[in-house]
Amino acid sequence: MDRRSFLKSSSLVASGFALNSLFNQSVAQTNNAILPSKKHPLLLNFNENSLGMSPKAKDAIIQALPTAFRYPDDARAELLNNIAELYNLSDKHISIGNGSSETIQATVAMLANKAKQRGINIQLVTPDPTFNYAELYSLPLGVKITKIPLKADLSFDLEKMEQAASNFDGLSVVYICNPNNPTAMVTPYSQLEKWLGTQSDNVFFIVDEAYAEFVEDPSFISAIEFVKKGQENLVVTRTFSKIFALAGLRVGYGVAAPNTISAIDEFLSIDNTNTAGAVAAIASLKDKTFIAHSLKSNNISRKIVEKALTEIGLEYAPSQANFIFHKVNGDVKTYKQRMADANVMVGREFPPVVGWNRLTLGTPEEMEQFVIVLKQFHEKGWA
Amino acid sequence: MDRRSFLKSSSLVASGFALNSLFNQSVAQTNNAILPSKKHPLLLNFNENSLGMSPKAKDAIIQALPTAFRYPDDARAELLNNIAELYNLSDKHISIGNGSSETIQATVAMLANKAKQRGINIQLVTPDPTFNYAELYSLPLGVKITKIPLKADLSFDLEKMEQAASNFDGLSVVYICNPNNPTAMVTPYSQLEKWLGTQSDNVFFIVDEAYAEFVEDPSFISAIEFVKKGQENLVVTRTFSKIFALAGLRVGYGVAAPNTISAIDEFLSIDNTNTAGAVAAIASLKDKTFIAHSLKSNNISRKIVEKALTEIGLEYAPSQANFIFHKVNGDVKTYKQRMADANVMVGREFPPVVGWNRLTLGTPEEMEQFVIVLKQFHEKGWA
Repeated sequence: MDRRSFLKSSSLVASGFALNSLFNQSVAQTNNAILPSKKHPLLLNFNENSLGMSPKAKDAIIQALPTAFRYPDDARAELLNNIAELYNLSDKHISIGNGSSETIQATVAMLANKAKQRGINIQLVTPDPTFNYAELYSLPLGVKITKIPLKADLSFDLEKMEQAASNFDGLSVVYICNPNNPTAMVTPYSQLEKWLGTQSDNVFFIVDEAYAEFVEDPSFISAIEFVKKGQENLVVTRTFSKIFALAGLRVGYGVAAPNTISAIDEFLSIDNTNTAGAVAAIASLKDKTFIAHSLKSNNISRKIVEKALTEIGLEYAPSQANFIFHKVNGDVKTYKQRMADANVMVGREFPPVVGWNRLTLGTPEEMEQFVIVLKQFHEKGWA
Repeated sequence: MDRRSFLKSSSLVASGFALNSLFNQSVAQTNNAILPSKKHPLLLNFNENSLGMSPKAKDAIIQALPTAFRYPDDARAELLNNIAELYNLSDKHISIGNGSSETIQATVAMLANKAKQRGINIQLVTPDPTFNYAELYSLPLGVKITKIPLKADLSFDLEKMEQAASNFDGLSVVYICNPNNPTAMVTPYSQLEKWLGTQSDNVFFIVDEAYAEFVEDPSFISAIEFVKKGQENLVVTRTFSKIFALAGLRVGYGVAAPNTISAIDEFLSIDNTNTAGAVAAIASLKDKTFIAHSLKSNNISRKIVEKALTEIGLEYAPSQANFIFHKVNGDVKTYKQRMADANVMVGREFPPVVGWNRLTLGTPEEMEQFVIVLKQFHEKGWA
């Protein structure tokens, strides 16, 4: 279930499953002897950062409350400058979104409008499976969706994606999620360099780097390099929802050439950045200790899970993000339901890749709890 | 200067005028003997609620910080239900926006897309002057803009607006801001009833009621009445930015028939509601004492300003909002600049209505400070 479907699911809303009960709970993080319970479930389904936000981000929000009755212009402008500085770019290279979700939406809307003005066709070329927001935003606009299945090793079939673009009579929007969601796998810069480095009026790349801050594999280089070279037919999206643990506060951004940014900005909603998110993002960017701690914690969590998966003989994809894609013995829907019955929410299957599940890496303590349940499942022949 | 231009104004951002200095200040509210200063300017330019948010809203945000690393689904669902209850409607009648700004944007985008699918023309029929976001969102989509000037008494020329719609070959999106911004004047329900009450495939109404909570004039009835009657060709937008003092936290909503809501929702960004804004909005809706206090405070502020304007002989429009539109002797730009030099930001002129300025009603203490400056200006022949 994608997040838009999740939100729409009236049974979920009506049942109160997702309402206050869970909202007011935090998963027990300290007592790793306790198994997940109805009161303290493990929420390993939406790639959130279970550490919670930086204490400095919390303080920044509390400090900002007395003036949050004003429009968010000042905090927004400061954040824009801080992000620009981070990449040694100007603020004209940065577009802040209400989450990178809105940046992706505005980009798709801008391109669909451009295609209409030019009187040409438009398609979205997207790997399958991948994060599906570009697709969800394309559908109501009548953009043709061209899905290219992952290769057998779960990597992108870049050759077929490029063919799909060059065979199309019109504008191709190419969505590249790096590391990819749900596989957590990196696509090396060397494989992207030639295609993404080519300026074209008929191909536009949305490179979604939501999980880039977790990557340690040196073969990954941010596509922001292309922006720095002045290329105009791409936008790189980033978010504060992942390593910065601000998913609830909705701050993401796009990095692109100034002409591209100003075109995207026309399709963002005005005043789109909330003050709480902006000041938290500013504080989080500066809190290098928190970022290092998040990265280290995620690496420990990954090792805990990888060790258990290896022990029970379940294959997994090489993760460079805060989640891991692993095989499940038997039907994934049944596995997912049984995990839910054991108060562990484990993500989901991503067809057309069947037999694999995406699991969010929570805190090491959470993952130790998960491993206990996983091993119990294995003994029962459920995993 | 509209807010989008304001945000884009690089000189403003670069100069630091609007940055940390103002952001970390609150206007002196207690010592009404002090005149506005560079350190404590009066910000009476964006129709914010200078009282600041409800203490209960602040507490709700602080309570929510430990779980704000999660996506905002739960708080969003609860807010949706609370708004629905407020109007005795179902949650399928409500669409939450990232401010009502996003609701207006999504509505315009949805309608432009619909017109494209139907292969027909689309225009925006908008009074002039009025709040211009519907226009700003229409422009990049190539929607034709048809502006109908206000009548001499500053009321809407509904007859000409209706003519413009019926003479148009295609879909007319009619924007009605009630009370209108910048005049703060109410359009009586009796004048809207016939036109807005007519179901049509070729006319769609966006009724922006951002300031409705300030209205006491019984001739105003919310257009939500039409939604309750099952009418599908309109959306009523509301916001938490005004009486609820949450402008920085970006929460607004639309009320419409379920079919209309689901069409609009396709054009909202996914996960568009931040947790801080959602929990603050939930708490604010329940804090009837705060709402009553805001209303009372605004009424006192309005009386303070009306009395001063009357004393110095400056005409004003009958205000039913948290701002007032008044005449200025001489050029408004000069007046505005001189006020800025005196550390009072007073809004602006809204051509084609010239010689009038929009002034936000801050706290009574702020308005007493403003009146002192205004009277000094009058003595100098500046107002």
